[in-house]
Amino acid sequence: MNRYNMVPYTDIDIDSGFWAYRQQLNREVTTGAVMRRFQDTGRFDAFRLNWREGMPNKPHYFWDSDIAKWMEGVAYLLKKGPAPEYEAVLEETIDRIEAGQGKDGYFNIFFTNIEPTKRFSNRDWHELYCAGHLIEAAVAYDEATGRDRFLKIMMKYADYIDRVFREENSAAFMTPGHEELELALVKLYRHTGEKRYLDLSKFFIDNRGANDKDKAADTPEHKLRLFQSHAPVREMTTAEGHAVRAGYLYSAMADIARETQDETLLAACKTLFENIVTRRMYITGGVGSGRYGEAYTVDFDLPNELAYTETCAAIALAYFARRMLTMDADSVYADVVETILYNGFLSSTSLDGKRFFYTNPMAISVRDRSRNVSADKYEWLPAMERVEVFGCSCCPPNITRFVASVAEYMYTTDEKRIFVHQFMGSNAEFGVGGKTVRVRQTTDYPTGNTVRFIVENGDGVQLAVRIPGWCRKFSLSAGYKMEKGYAVVDCAGDAFELTLTMEMEPELIEANPEVQANAGRVALRRGPVVYCIEAADNGERIQDIRVDAQLDAKVEYCDTVKMPVVIVRGWRRKAEAGSWLYRPVKAEMEEMRVKFIPYYAFANRGPSDMQVWNLLK
Amino acid sequence: MNRYNMVPYTDIDIDSGFWAYRQQLNREVTTGAVMRRFQDTGRFDAFRLNWREGMPNKPHYFWDSDIAKWMEGVAYLLKKGPAPEYEAVLEETIDRIEAGQGKDGYFNIFFTNIEPTKRFSNRDWHELYCAGHLIEAAVAYDEATGRDRFLKIMMKYADYIDRVFREENSAAFMTPGHEELELALVKLYRHTGEKRYLDLSKFFIDNRGANDKDKAADTPEHKLRLFQSHAPVREMTTAEGHAVRAGYLYSAMADIARETQDETLLAACKTLFENIVTRRMYITGGVGSGRYGEAYTVDFDLPNELAYTETCAAIALAYFARRMLTMDADSVYADVVETILYNGFLSSTSLDGKRFFYTNPMAISVRDRSRNVSADKYEWLPAMERVEVFGCSCCPPNITRFVASVAEYMYTTDEKRIFVHQFMGSNAEFGVGGKTVRVRQTTDYPTGNTVRFIVENGDGVQLAVRIPGWCRKFSLSAGYKMEKGYAVVDCAGDAFELTLTMEMEPELIEANPEVQANAGRVALRRGPVVYCIEAADNGERIQDIRVDAQLDAKVEYCDTVKMPVVIVRGWRRKAEAGSWLYRPVKAEMEEMRVKFIPYYAFANRGPSDMQVWNLLK
Repeated sequence: MNRYNMVPYTDIDIDSGFWAYRQQLNREVTTGAVMRRFQDTGRFDAFRLNWREGMPNKPHYFWDSDIAKWMEGVAYLLKKGPAPEYEAVLEETIDRIEAGQGKDGYFNIFFTNIEPTKRFSNRDWHELYCAGHLIEAAVAYDEATGRDRFLKIMMKYADYIDRVFREENSAAFMTPGHEELELALVKLYRHTGEKRYLDLSKFFIDNRGANDKDKAADTPEHKLRLFQSHAPVREMTTAEGHAVRAGYLYSAMADIARETQDETLLAACKTLFENIVTRRMYITGGVGSGRYGEAYTVDFDLPNELAYTETCAAIALAYFARRMLTMDADSVYADVVETILYNGFLSSTSLDGKRFFYTNPMAISVRDRSRNVSADKYEWLPAMERVEVFGCSCCPPNITRFVASVAEYMYTTDEKRIFVHQFMGSNAEFGVGGKTVRVRQTTDYPTGNTVRFIVENGDGVQLAVRIPGWCRKFSLSAGYKMEKGYAVVDCAGDAFELTLTMEMEPELIEANPEVQANAGRVALRRGPVVYCIEAADNGERIQDIRVDAQLDAKVEYCDTVKMPVVIVRGWRRKAEAGSWLYRPVKAEMEEMRVKFIPYYAFANRGPSDMQVWNLLK
Repeated sequence: MNRYNMVPYTDIDIDSGFWAYRQQLNREVTTGAVMRRFQDTGRFDAFRLNWREGMPNKPHYFWDSDIAKWMEGVAYLLKKGPAPEYEAVLEETIDRIEAGQGKDGYFNIFFTNIEPTKRFSNRDWHELYCAGHLIEAAVAYDEATGRDRFLKIMMKYADYIDRVFREENSAAFMTPGHEELELALVKLYRHTGEKRYLDLSKFFIDNRGANDKDKAADTPEHKLRLFQSHAPVREMTTAEGHAVRAGYLYSAMADIARETQDETLLAACKTLFENIVTRRMYITGGVGSGRYGEAYTVDFDLPNELAYTETCAAIALAYFARRMLTMDADSVYADVVETILYNGFLSSTSLDGKRFFYTNPMAISVRDRSRNVSADKYEWLPAMERVEVFGCSCCPPNITRFVASVAEYMYTTDEKRIFVHQFMGSNAEFGVGGKTVRVRQTTDYPTGNTVRFIVENGDGVQLAVRIPGWCRKFSLSAGYKMEKGYAVVDCAGDAFELTLTMEMEPELIEANPEVQANAGRVALRRGPVVYCIEAADNGERIQDIRVDAQLDAKVEYCDTVKMPVVIVRGWRRKAEAGSWLYRPVKAEMEEMRVKFIPYYAFANRGPSDMQVWNLLK
């Protein structure tokens, strides 16, 4: 098994271009907006453990994780520069965790303050999930600040969990109902070198779907599937159940496969990944099409307006893909990361950085909201506008930590090679083949189609540059050989320069014929960016718009969305409301200019019809 | 205001062709099948009024109406021939009603046996609706048998209702929550000549949406809309709320408009009818697209798979249209009746006559049923197969009474003219201009495109033959002038013969551009019959099939469905499951023969994907 090194965000500075802007927005706006909404809703106060009946803001069993993810994101920010307002809140929260930790090491708001008799009694109550997020935050905090008190607290908690689950087997269940702790334990192991954390993670992975305790806790069948406990992990062949849990599980499986050189586990990961990307993923990288269970459904079931595609599920799939790159340098994984980055993940956040989507639909019809004028019950439909905070607010702090650490998706290395997975204006430093190599990327990708690399001190090292799956024609300023989607170039000299230019015209994309929802429809993509049309640009009846198959597209940079918009020729039937309802086909068309905006920028101008998959003329 | 006479089914014998077959099936199979399921489920026994806690089959508040509709249908059968098995059950039921009627005249299973203290206390509990159906049954029974005991029972009950609602105003509400009694009272008035029944009906119509008692009973707003109480009836401009209730209300409004020569009420009826047929009706004549509230929703909101389109709602719209013909001899009304007859109504019943749809969807995807493999909650989706009986089994006996009396949709008359609205092999007798005229229709319509009329004793009478809205070219064997869609012919001699021949090629139909669900899609129609495609004929991925715009259709009679099937050229993309999910458009097509079957015949071969609106090449 190949083992590639993840290059941590600490070794990379994103200093220009699209992601520098997004990171600045995250630092200056988003992280603060999330903090204030969490303050308003009592989430920080909950760490005082003094909530009493009659007080507002009763703590929920997932609140530890909301705050932990925000803390983790702040740690990433602190590493890169001062953020005193956030840091103060972070430190105060650690104080409270320190004060609130049990003598045995246990820490959880809900099961200490609200349900003290129910510790480790309900598999679905996110208890170990919360522990995992606190551990991830503690590792990030130690890494960023060098202050280890949070880490020590969480190691003590991890040790307690180890005793309860692995030694005593005294909990009411055997493995987490909501995965997350598994991957956090691997992080803790890598950070501390303490193998017992890896072992505990492997224990959870090995026992999942393979023990009677969990099965008894989570009948009937649908619940086992919802929690990825329907089969032992090495026998799983299709992505099932809650899409965030699934993604976190598969990420941990990949981690364990790499750390323990478990080929069978790696094979299962590959099978699961292939199932997702060839049958169960939206064109945006969104996954989990089913609202009920927030879950993966069945192959090719990818409805557009009913797409659930939780933001956290897209993030979880990026986690999984990134980890696969540490064993298999195949560009398919980095392609999926890129698709998620520019589409299914980015759509989560408003252009002003303050509001969020929990679900990320592929189509919106505003009219559908008014159809139940005579009813008090409704079909489920995704939100039309982003909001500042959710009751279940897992996504916003997942976004802040993801953006702050997005550099981690850029590179992996081995002894002689630097793999370039993502293109972002940046400086990075690597230990490769015993020396320190620096790589500078200069690019306005994906607005522009050129990436310039300068490799310092890289003589004899290879740069393996991903040629994106969407790109059918490219040029490189040096000789290369292709390996699994990467153009491998030998660096020479002290300051080796390399320029990649990619043909990046807008293209119409079709979905596999098995995808019923997209029969007769096409999406527009330019480079990695998926586009959509909105009524705000295109007027009424956008559902009736036909796009010209002979795409003669005009590409115009738009500063509001920090990306080009695309204008193409199209047609729409004439409005004839009320004059007839059915008639022999005439299909009298009016020609029009159809304006596409990046999918991620939809719903920033009030409720508006939106569509990714449009009719083809 | 014009007043045309309805020609009762008693004066018409359908003796050949499509509807003779359906009537035979209704007599020999359907009516018995419904009876037996109603026996199995305790509905007949409930009329003993002796249900006690612990016994099976607790009576429901709408059971009177289920049985009443069946009784009404049996009365129609008895008029046309012996049916001793049904007659015995009918007579026994009347015995029980006689025995169970209160001294004050009240009769209702549920409010006598189950909730005796709640009489007239809840507007939504179908109490007056049940009374209405019992009255309709009693009128039909008297008319068919000449035995008046049931009629007398129901007149006594109607008199009691009159006292409670009109004289004392002592109920908790003022007008029925589920309309039906209104039109039944007009029938009772016409049958008995007792004007107080017409007055009571008018009282309900006039007070609807115009009194504070109902408003207090049915807040909030959505509930008022659900029960058509959001506005006074003369101010209603859009079809709202529960689609069956709405259709029964509009039918009664039309009845009252005709009987009282109320032009304002007629104008409201015309506005409502136009709103339905130009904005809120499926191509099948189905109405009420919303599952929640079983309701009309908003203009042009006509989703295909989520179409609710209850069978009873289609029947109610036919009632409304038929009544409009008694004031306005415009073929648009008879066109809608015909559309309903051959499509949205007929789809309700299996080809074997034993099983029924409550909802009549425009598309089925079998796969959608398996999507929630990880959940215990589900999206609502319409049934894929017909069943023998429902918990709420309003539709089956509505079907039996409708088919048994379908001749009533064929003709109206005035002093000098016979309007032919529907084409069915039949003999009919009319009093027109002081003499008895007989009309014989010979036709295998709509398999065939020719209708032959022989008018006996019709010298000087005019025959006004509807030229269907779907027909763009026709020929008549005699001179005519067109009036509002009718070809008016002067009959001459003792046995005047007339032949109508209609061009009846399959056609592709588009929906108004405002109908989002059908953008880029077409339906196939031949004559009045709407077609659909099923996986059972066309294999996998029927959603991906494109139909040739240059329709070169082969029409083949199929005895199983008693109608032609239609075969056209089409294309479908090649199956490539798993090899890719998204790619630049190639749209590699395979040519195929696409087999269309009549929509009404869908779902007779097990669960199968079905689609009415298909992609156009």
